[in-house]
Amino acid sequence: MIGRPEFSVEPWGITAAGADLETLAQSETLFSLSNGHLGWRGNLDEGEPAGMPGSYLNGFFEERPLPHAEPGYGYPETGETLINTVNGKLIRLLVDDEPLDLRTGEARRHERRLDFRQGMLRRDLEWTSPSGRTVRVRSRRIVSLTERSVAAVVYEVEAVDRACRVVVQSELLANEPLPVEYDDPRIAAALKRPLTAVAASASGARADLVHRTSGSRLTVATAMDHLIEGTVGFGVETVVEPDLARTTVTADLEPGQSLRIVKFVAYCWSADRGPAALRDEADANLAVALRSGWDGLVEQQRGVLDDFWAHSDVAIDGDPELQQAVRFSLFSVLQASLRAEGTALPAKGLTGPGYDGHSFWETEIFVLPVLVSTLPDAARDALRWRHSTLGIARRRAQELRLRGAAFPWRTIDGRECSGYWPAGTAAFHVNADIAHACLRYLRATGDDEFEAGIGLELLIETARLWQTLGHFDAHGRFHIDGVTGPDEYSAIVDDNVYTNLMAAQNLRGAAEFAERHPAGAAKLGVTPEEIAGWRTAAGAMSIPYDEERRVHPQSHEFTDHDRWDFEGTPPEEYPLMEHFPYFELYRKQVVKQADLVLALVLRSREFTDAEKLRDFAYYEALTVRDSSLSAAVQAIVAAEVGALQLAADYLAETALIDLGDLHGSTGSGLHMASLAGIWTTLVAGFGGMRHDEDGLRFAPRLPENLDRLSFGIRVDGGSLRVEVGRDETAYTWTGAAALRFAHGREQVEVEPGASTRLPNPPVPVPVIEITQPRGRSPRTVIHSNGG
Amino acid sequence: MIGRPEFSVEPWGITAAGADLETLAQSETLFSLSNGHLGWRGNLDEGEPAGMPGSYLNGFFEERPLPHAEPGYGYPETGETLINTVNGKLIRLLVDDEPLDLRTGEARRHERRLDFRQGMLRRDLEWTSPSGRTVRVRSRRIVSLTERSVAAVVYEVEAVDRACRVVVQSELLANEPLPVEYDDPRIAAALKRPLTAVAASASGARADLVHRTSGSRLTVATAMDHLIEGTVGFGVETVVEPDLARTTVTADLEPGQSLRIVKFVAYCWSADRGPAALRDEADANLAVALRSGWDGLVEQQRGVLDDFWAHSDVAIDGDPELQQAVRFSLFSVLQASLRAEGTALPAKGLTGPGYDGHSFWETEIFVLPVLVSTLPDAARDALRWRHSTLGIARRRAQELRLRGAAFPWRTIDGRECSGYWPAGTAAFHVNADIAHACLRYLRATGDDEFEAGIGLELLIETARLWQTLGHFDAHGRFHIDGVTGPDEYSAIVDDNVYTNLMAAQNLRGAAEFAERHPAGAAKLGVTPEEIAGWRTAAGAMSIPYDEERRVHPQSHEFTDHDRWDFEGTPPEEYPLMEHFPYFELYRKQVVKQADLVLALVLRSREFTDAEKLRDFAYYEALTVRDSSLSAAVQAIVAAEVGALQLAADYLAETALIDLGDLHGSTGSGLHMASLAGIWTTLVAGFGGMRHDEDGLRFAPRLPENLDRLSFGIRVDGGSLRVEVGRDETAYTWTGAAALRFAHGREQVEVEPGASTRLPNPPVPVPVIEITQPRGRSPRTVIHSNGG
Repeated sequence: MIGRPEFSVEPWGITAAGADLETLAQSETLFSLSNGHLGWRGNLDEGEPAGMPGSYLNGFFEERPLPHAEPGYGYPETGETLINTVNGKLIRLLVDDEPLDLRTGEARRHERRLDFRQGMLRRDLEWTSPSGRTVRVRSRRIVSLTERSVAAVVYEVEAVDRACRVVVQSELLANEPLPVEYDDPRIAAALKRPLTAVAASASGARADLVHRTSGSRLTVATAMDHLIEGTVGFGVETVVEPDLARTTVTADLEPGQSLRIVKFVAYCWSADRGPAALRDEADANLAVALRSGWDGLVEQQRGVLDDFWAHSDVAIDGDPELQQAVRFSLFSVLQASLRAEGTALPAKGLTGPGYDGHSFWETEIFVLPVLVSTLPDAARDALRWRHSTLGIARRRAQELRLRGAAFPWRTIDGRECSGYWPAGTAAFHVNADIAHACLRYLRATGDDEFEAGIGLELLIETARLWQTLGHFDAHGRFHIDGVTGPDEYSAIVDDNVYTNLMAAQNLRGAAEFAERHPAGAAKLGVTPEEIAGWRTAAGAMSIPYDEERRVHPQSHEFTDHDRWDFEGTPPEEYPLMEHFPYFELYRKQVVKQADLVLALVLRSREFTDAEKLRDFAYYEALTVRDSSLSAAVQAIVAAEVGALQLAADYLAETALIDLGDLHGSTGSGLHMASLAGIWTTLVAGFGGMRHDEDGLRFAPRLPENLDRLSFGIRVDGGSLRVEVGRDETAYTWTGAAALRFAHGREQVEVEPGASTRLPNPPVPVPVIEITQPRGRSPRTVIHSNGG
Repeated sequence: MIGRPEFSVEPWGITAAGADLETLAQSETLFSLSNGHLGWRGNLDEGEPAGMPGSYLNGFFEERPLPHAEPGYGYPETGETLINTVNGKLIRLLVDDEPLDLRTGEARRHERRLDFRQGMLRRDLEWTSPSGRTVRVRSRRIVSLTERSVAAVVYEVEAVDRACRVVVQSELLANEPLPVEYDDPRIAAALKRPLTAVAASASGARADLVHRTSGSRLTVATAMDHLIEGTVGFGVETVVEPDLARTTVTADLEPGQSLRIVKFVAYCWSADRGPAALRDEADANLAVALRSGWDGLVEQQRGVLDDFWAHSDVAIDGDPELQQAVRFSLFSVLQASLRAEGTALPAKGLTGPGYDGHSFWETEIFVLPVLVSTLPDAARDALRWRHSTLGIARRRAQELRLRGAAFPWRTIDGRECSGYWPAGTAAFHVNADIAHACLRYLRATGDDEFEAGIGLELLIETARLWQTLGHFDAHGRFHIDGVTGPDEYSAIVDDNVYTNLMAAQNLRGAAEFAERHPAGAAKLGVTPEEIAGWRTAAGAMSIPYDEERRVHPQSHEFTDHDRWDFEGTPPEEYPLMEHFPYFELYRKQVVKQADLVLALVLRSREFTDAEKLRDFAYYEALTVRDSSLSAAVQAIVAAEVGALQLAADYLAETALIDLGDLHGSTGSGLHMASLAGIWTTLVAGFGGMRHDEDGLRFAPRLPENLDRLSFGIRVDGGSLRVEVGRDETAYTWTGAAALRFAHGREQVEVEPGASTRLPNPPVPVPVIEITQPRGRSPRTVIHSNGG
């Protein structure tokens, strides 16, 4: 893995040296700080230049019209967009009348570093103004992992060679202009200045702003306070306007003298609480932060992360870039989820405006597995959020003339926001994905309270959906027609294998839960007949198979379709959806992202090893990976069928998606699902971990380039560390009772506090050639075919 | 057939008595006058009250944004809307300061009558003003069938019982307010005041207005002049403003005295010609009209219609309402097409703003057959219009990554305006429909020049499309996957039988034409290999068949889908698309409109009689007729399989679609295709006429309620009259050479000028029970279940 010239390769952080303004948006994304509730993009302290200014509160969105060229029954009319809330990061500096701006003067040194163990963004800058004054600026920024409403900045400026007057303006700024164009004037009206000022006040170095959104009617209070220290005297003044609070600190610095400002910011928002209550809440949070002080917040931050890394670190020998990538992956997943607490996990976390800040099925299928094994409480909270939207999902099912609950394809607050139903509403698998995530969480935690409450209700309502979505044919087989599976280059198909297998699991899970919790099930109106119906449907579920080609068709008759002309498709025509109409993609054999291959992972036990290999080889030749959701899944199956180098290559590609900006969209936020995929590829691919109805199991195997892989997972309330070497694997178990699992075909039991060391099971040799479409083999270097 | 309380049942016209303002929009539509180039809705002379003001010029549209909630490659971004051009009908009357308005005063007598033989709308009104003055108003209105740019009105007012002063204001009014709401401000900006004034002038009783559209950049000149006669003296004055020209005539009338104003209006529009040229053109047309005078125009009108009815009248004994309906059908088709000359035939003709004034496949499949047999030159002109858009269709095919030409699903000027591709662009059958119409036109006319030019090019370019849309499977069968057939309750299906049969005909037709015209084909780059390829694809065309159920599935595996729950669907949930999402409709066996059943008619020879009966019975049980395009087709097949009463019932329903406003949308324009279906049901259903590769044939049979059916068709440059009686049928041929056709299984030859009388062939007795979904049997009375 080469490339990424501007970012360092280091084990516990990312450093960008220099002042490359071309990749500013990408670096802002990578340097985002977040706790899952509050997210600050890594914008420069001084606000400008900026790739994309961004300060986000999870769930804080504005409504906007969702226009349709032709209306249709059940189309959502209202969209939701996560908005850039009040910018509390902003600290501008004037040096003798000249604003610090990287586009002017000279940056003699500029280094930004994100530290995965401290949860802190550091910046060190030495800048000479156009008129020749040189200052040294050090800023340190955190978004607190312990105080979810709080972020803080330390900003220090020092005169270097000549005396100068400095003016530091620390701000709260609402309705920042964004580099976004709106075609539709109604959408522009909603989103261009989404915040309406409600109140503003200031005293001393403290200020409060309260704003409200017009459509979604959400209120946010933002408060800041400052501690100012200097080696010289300084003046302080705070002014407020409706959209601006500004504390100005002025000082005359001799060379070597410095000014230090600690800025605390607190955000509180609510759909229900009024402006005064929210302002009080923000001030209260600020009071807590002030009492902790900067050092206290930093220490708490470190405590949270030390604990996380102790249990969940993934250590690799042999590939420093992959080492960095997997820790960035874990750090990003933690940042996106730790304090989300009842709000969604957006596809981009809180790192950018991409996908309008929406959450998709990726949360449950790509991110949740990481959380289940590393931060099970965050996994539970994410499922709690889904459950909190169950009322909306029930109403949506009703609107769609179905029973049970129909969860949305994309949403912020639970309402369907998809504007294109064939690749949105029709992708009903999201319901089985949620059920799958519940089962996975429960298998790892045994959280009985969750099962009896949230789990039971989610499984029952999603099972009810499948029962009305499917039908029995004359021969008693159960079919699910006219839906869309994970692959977005197919739509509205019959018997998508992924969907049907996941639905069968959903139906069986609901039946088991309902029988285990008869009282809870009865409250939801479940009858023994209904339970029997679920089992019958699951048992009769149609799983198409192509006897001629001896593979599973992705969906019924998929393999009979015309094959895409890969040889005739030049590299510049990818991604295909930007060069070909949907209908052309839909009616041919071409796969955007793992679909049947994802089923091979998630419903591993439903396929024989030989089937897995044949299916994988068949779909490898059709999969173009125009989605960031694919490479990791392909890597996992490649590892399983023994194509370890291919797995390593796909992993390298996955690791580049954000760190190498492989899809050119990192500037609008991280791809949380593909980041999660780095971890999953290591653990489920090279660790071979599966955890399903057949229990926990591992099949460790290392590719050529790795000498050692060590990962930790939370399970059964304890912590298992797995150290995979080239020839053997060591398992160390810290838990209350013995842990059983399989190692290859061998059943293992480890006592609490004990270790066991086992030779690695044999790795199969793939007997079928595995090839990709022309030009679509894994991208292990950035500049292989475009960026 | 009962109902239609406000309209008379009469053989040669429609009369509405009274002043029912509730059904004003419907009556304005029914009383529309048009020549295919210019259309005036039957708005009251005085402009208000109005259901929907409307003055249209074929092809005169404005562009507007076509917004998409989620963008996609190849989506049209620009829509087209036929606009309400300058209103030249308007004549307001003041009686002693009080405006004539049916909402005030008292209408003692009010009668409007459309006359099919005169092509004239008459109105007779006796009105007493609120202050007690009674006037008699007579107006006569025509849109000239001989002077395509010209319309004229005679307006007479007479004082009845007391002397009064009358003021008559005859106007041209641009940008009339319409009772339409626009959600999208961009669309409102384009359409609310679509006309920008360019010039305005007046002298004497004459005035000109010139306007321009902003987006489509079309210019229109409208001119009016007046002849004024009175039994008393009068004053005349004309004023103009940018959007208004008004000639005011004032007179003092004693009881019995009257004032008569003849108004001539001429419209000329162009995309290329400038304002001055267009104004001259309008004035020149006006000069011609003035020279003809009112009586001359009326006489010419009568001449055109006498000739039309002489050849094409359909006479019926036994059902006066059907008699009226079929003449209205023919009159409407004539009005929509006679002078369209190189512009489209919109789905609503020029009778209202419905469907934005777009043309669909209905033109070729439903309206063209009537034209081919009654006004072959108009059929040719309609196909000439399609051909004139071939360049756009070629570019569209390229954009869609296909070869040949891809004609649009809906359009005014040839560009695709469909905002929902699964039921728009994917309905590629429109291309085969155009080819079918060419073949049909040529079969009836033998127009060699057309075949060698327009026909050849249209067939070749559409055949090329099929060649890239389809593919050969491993067994050599040719499949067309992922397209949408006529039924809008299915979409994106494989091997739609209708599409495949029509495509095969298209491919074979192209091969034949190319071989007959080698030079022309070579110019289009056709090679012998390409021709061979067309024949191979046509010969290998996959026509799925369900061996288990012994029926043709509408598309591959359609019959395996879940059946719609018709029993559980109450009447108020129809039309289904307003109560169920597309995905629910698409994945179930439920049919909006004839699809496979349409194939039984258009590709009759591809099915055995037994297959037709089984297929018809199968689809009858699934077809809900939520479209106005279905009943006539079902009627034709019902007649063919011997279900004559059912055919008669469907015909009755078809006859009610506009005259009974069965779909509640007649107010926004006539349903030209279903009107055409009245004629087609009589001729192809009870006359049993088919004209395909096997030649011209009839299979006459009358339902119980008809004693005689007489129709005339144009064929081989001559005119054939067919008189079907209960037991025998008489054929009278006027043509240059002997005409051969089949009567039942018998081959017949009639010499020019001769008649032959033959016993009707036996009618089969359907041996399968034919039923419709619950509540969806034919609606032969208006108030059966709402509507």
